[in-house]
Amino acid sequence: MKKSQYKEEVKALRAELIQLQLSLKDADFPVLIVIGGDDRSGRHETLNLLHEWMDPRFLQANAYGFPTEEEQQKPFMWRYWKDLPPKGLIGLCLRDWTSYSIIEHLVDQLNQEQLAQRIEYSKKFEETLISQGMLIIKIWLHLPEEELKQRLTVERKQIHKTWQIHQRDQQIYTNFDHAKNVIRNTLKATHSEAAPWHIIDSSDLYERNLNVGNLIAKQIKARLKSPPEIQSAKLHKELSAFKGNHLAKVDLSQSIDKSEYKKTLKHWQKKASLLIHQFQEKDQSCVIVFEGWDAAGKGGCIRRLTSSIDAGFYRVTPIAAPTEEELSHHYLWRFWRKIPRAGRMSIFDRSWYGRVLVERVEGFAETREWQDAYDEINDFEQQLHDKGTPVIKFWLHIDKDEQLSRFQERENTPYKHHKITEEDYRNREKWDDYEIAINDMIDYTSTEYAPWRLIPANSKHFARIEVLKHVCEVLEATLTNNTGE
Amino acid sequence: MKKSQYKEEVKALRAELIQLQLSLKDADFPVLIVIGGDDRSGRHETLNLLHEWMDPRFLQANAYGFPTEEEQQKPFMWRYWKDLPPKGLIGLCLRDWTSYSIIEHLVDQLNQEQLAQRIEYSKKFEETLISQGMLIIKIWLHLPEEELKQRLTVERKQIHKTWQIHQRDQQIYTNFDHAKNVIRNTLKATHSEAAPWHIIDSSDLYERNLNVGNLIAKQIKARLKSPPEIQSAKLHKELSAFKGNHLAKVDLSQSIDKSEYKKTLKHWQKKASLLIHQFQEKDQSCVIVFEGWDAAGKGGCIRRLTSSIDAGFYRVTPIAAPTEEELSHHYLWRFWRKIPRAGRMSIFDRSWYGRVLVERVEGFAETREWQDAYDEINDFEQQLHDKGTPVIKFWLHIDKDEQLSRFQERENTPYKHHKITEEDYRNREKWDDYEIAINDMIDYTSTEYAPWRLIPANSKHFARIEVLKHVCEVLEATLTNNTGE
Repeated sequence: MKKSQYKEEVKALRAELIQLQLSLKDADFPVLIVIGGDDRSGRHETLNLLHEWMDPRFLQANAYGFPTEEEQQKPFMWRYWKDLPPKGLIGLCLRDWTSYSIIEHLVDQLNQEQLAQRIEYSKKFEETLISQGMLIIKIWLHLPEEELKQRLTVERKQIHKTWQIHQRDQQIYTNFDHAKNVIRNTLKATHSEAAPWHIIDSSDLYERNLNVGNLIAKQIKARLKSPPEIQSAKLHKELSAFKGNHLAKVDLSQSIDKSEYKKTLKHWQKKASLLIHQFQEKDQSCVIVFEGWDAAGKGGCIRRLTSSIDAGFYRVTPIAAPTEEELSHHYLWRFWRKIPRAGRMSIFDRSWYGRVLVERVEGFAETREWQDAYDEINDFEQQLHDKGTPVIKFWLHIDKDEQLSRFQERENTPYKHHKITEEDYRNREKWDDYEIAINDMIDYTSTEYAPWRLIPANSKHFARIEVLKHVCEVLEATLTNNTGE
Repeated sequence: MKKSQYKEEVKALRAELIQLQLSLKDADFPVLIVIGGDDRSGRHETLNLLHEWMDPRFLQANAYGFPTEEEQQKPFMWRYWKDLPPKGLIGLCLRDWTSYSIIEHLVDQLNQEQLAQRIEYSKKFEETLISQGMLIIKIWLHLPEEELKQRLTVERKQIHKTWQIHQRDQQIYTNFDHAKNVIRNTLKATHSEAAPWHIIDSSDLYERNLNVGNLIAKQIKARLKSPPEIQSAKLHKELSAFKGNHLAKVDLSQSIDKSEYKKTLKHWQKKASLLIHQFQEKDQSCVIVFEGWDAAGKGGCIRRLTSSIDAGFYRVTPIAAPTEEELSHHYLWRFWRKIPRAGRMSIFDRSWYGRVLVERVEGFAETREWQDAYDEINDFEQQLHDKGTPVIKFWLHIDKDEQLSRFQERENTPYKHHKITEEDYRNREKWDDYEIAINDMIDYTSTEYAPWRLIPANSKHFARIEVLKHVCEVLEATLTNNTGE
């Protein structure tokens, strides 16, 4: 292609890209552009080019290098989750989850099995984002073998560029055929209809640039014109069928007398304190989720637990309605950003389960959305579990009469009065709908790695002891398992 | 105090605290409660207590332990900055900046001089927050020596609590009198009218709890009733006086011919690439700020710079109008959150200088606010500099005619058209006001550690080379200085 022709085409393309960016600003979805390929195929130059062609104020670029200490302590996908673009913006991603996993495998830091797991994580990650509307454009810049080898030779001669050839690269290129195979197979495995790989030949600069730009323009234009028919990828289970009425089986008559409570509480708090200290010493982290009916006593349970923990070790996150910024991201985004680092404990007072409880019952989420959430949540919790972070989930159960009497007590106590609003009474009218949602939630998210623990909470004292006991049990088991390794 | 009396008083206090929290929600300032003192004086218990008494949804607690890797790489105040509560909420802070510095000094990790510097940082930090409306309540829980010694003895006998006595503590208590002196002097030095220390005796549980609760209630109530007369602590310089018309001295006729430009550009990019690689290797970070007239060519300069840097090493942050979340914090908060970690470079396309430019000229900031900003900004940049992170600041200067012709060129180029709006022309009408603001900015924020570099930018080519040259110069000097140590 002649330079003059290239310049002419670029002019038109730039105008189009800018126009699309401006239209995107009012759209209700984000775009994520993944630029994969070898360093010599021009990933970085492409990133720069897109910054030049488009309006950088509406671009959000992230390039991922060797994981930092914090990144190593958290599930692999964490760093990609936390940087996702909000609705209306375009994210650019260099050394994405797939490219990075390929590299790690090629330099023997990830075995075959671990690579397969990464591919699973990656596919679910993309599926999850797409199902809430994100447009993902995955570009793989490809260089024919001869061309790549030649560029490597040239580069080695340019002193100021040698740093671009990491030792890692050297290792990769010792066996070209093996590398080619791994790349081919991994791209195949992570190629899907909703998030396909677009292979672009990178030999000719002009053609590469135009192809990348045109592809992006075409994809965004198509997506702006017609929102995709999101076919939920998951096969939907029979919902709301009350396969088992888990709540009905909870024996709410259980209680504990006051003097026994005081003694027992001290015992378990002491035990929890010791176990948590061991956890901290071993740099282990932990997630605890409290869900339950309004007025079920979550706050009281949390305080009995935290009073035995050093304040530097835990953080309690009360989950309220999402902020404007949170609403412009996938609903799991805000929770991914709050998972604990090594040696810390995150306690959630309400959680991501809002998606399948209040958002389902109140109709804030579409049917497809809350139905998809079961698998998305399981996947999220599994990634935490796989990283050695136990997820402990409590449902505090009370009956309708107990709730009413607690509402009334709150109304009559000056410092509790503000806790009770008309909304609580409105929610109460939907008790039966919630019961269905809760039972479904327990059915579909009580996994082996993160089972629900139903706590009879008509007696506040009984519930507090139960919670402490369960926490100790899980911490102890985790410590034992990890020592055994 | 009798238990029954305590219970009665607590009831009233809780109701009052809750009521204040609800009123705070609509107030336009945040509250930060600092709980200092020895671990045995009940800091943690107080934190728990406040969670019980107040509504935890509107509390935001942070306890700081040993600094993480990332915290160590950034200025000391970073971790406190990033966790600040937004307007309407209450932050609780354990092991605050002062307490933590005292401990570090007592265990010989901070010498006398460094402690003095920390005290300076702390005072400026508090001043800065207070000047934008934050209410800071600093509580020091005090235990008489005999009582403290006795509690230590008891604790050592309770196995499950021994973890609370860190080795550090042991070291502190080898010389009680020295510790007492250091604490007394540091509290004195960090006590100010706007952020005084409230010393509360912690010997008696009931009294301590009530005193802490009542103090908080009283402070918040007073602040809600009447916003403080914020006496700007700083002596104001004679502003807008055109002490020197820095801009007028810039020789805008400088340019470079095209073939010379291409050659020179390559040379400096190569050099920058090498230097930046050395920076990265040494885990050094760097901040580069681009400010300039509309259409001065900031974007072009940034791209010529970044094209020679590995994409994983830098991040370009375009500064637009603040988001809702950012607006509910101190204006420097969003910039503190974006400072680079070790081995990274943060490039700002516009910056915190918006406070003394657009916010001053457009009246978005009050006179006192933008006047205070000069010192606040200098302090911010000094903390970066002290941590070994150079701050390189460019003002791209063009004249009014050049701007007009660039506006017109933009209007006539399809992909640039969107960059030009009526607002640009409105800003242009305020050219003279901006000129005053820019000259003042240069006068008051051109420090030894972070001087402004005025770039003649009527010739885009000339400006790009100048920017690259300056960056190389600073990087080289930084590398030399640090090798020399």
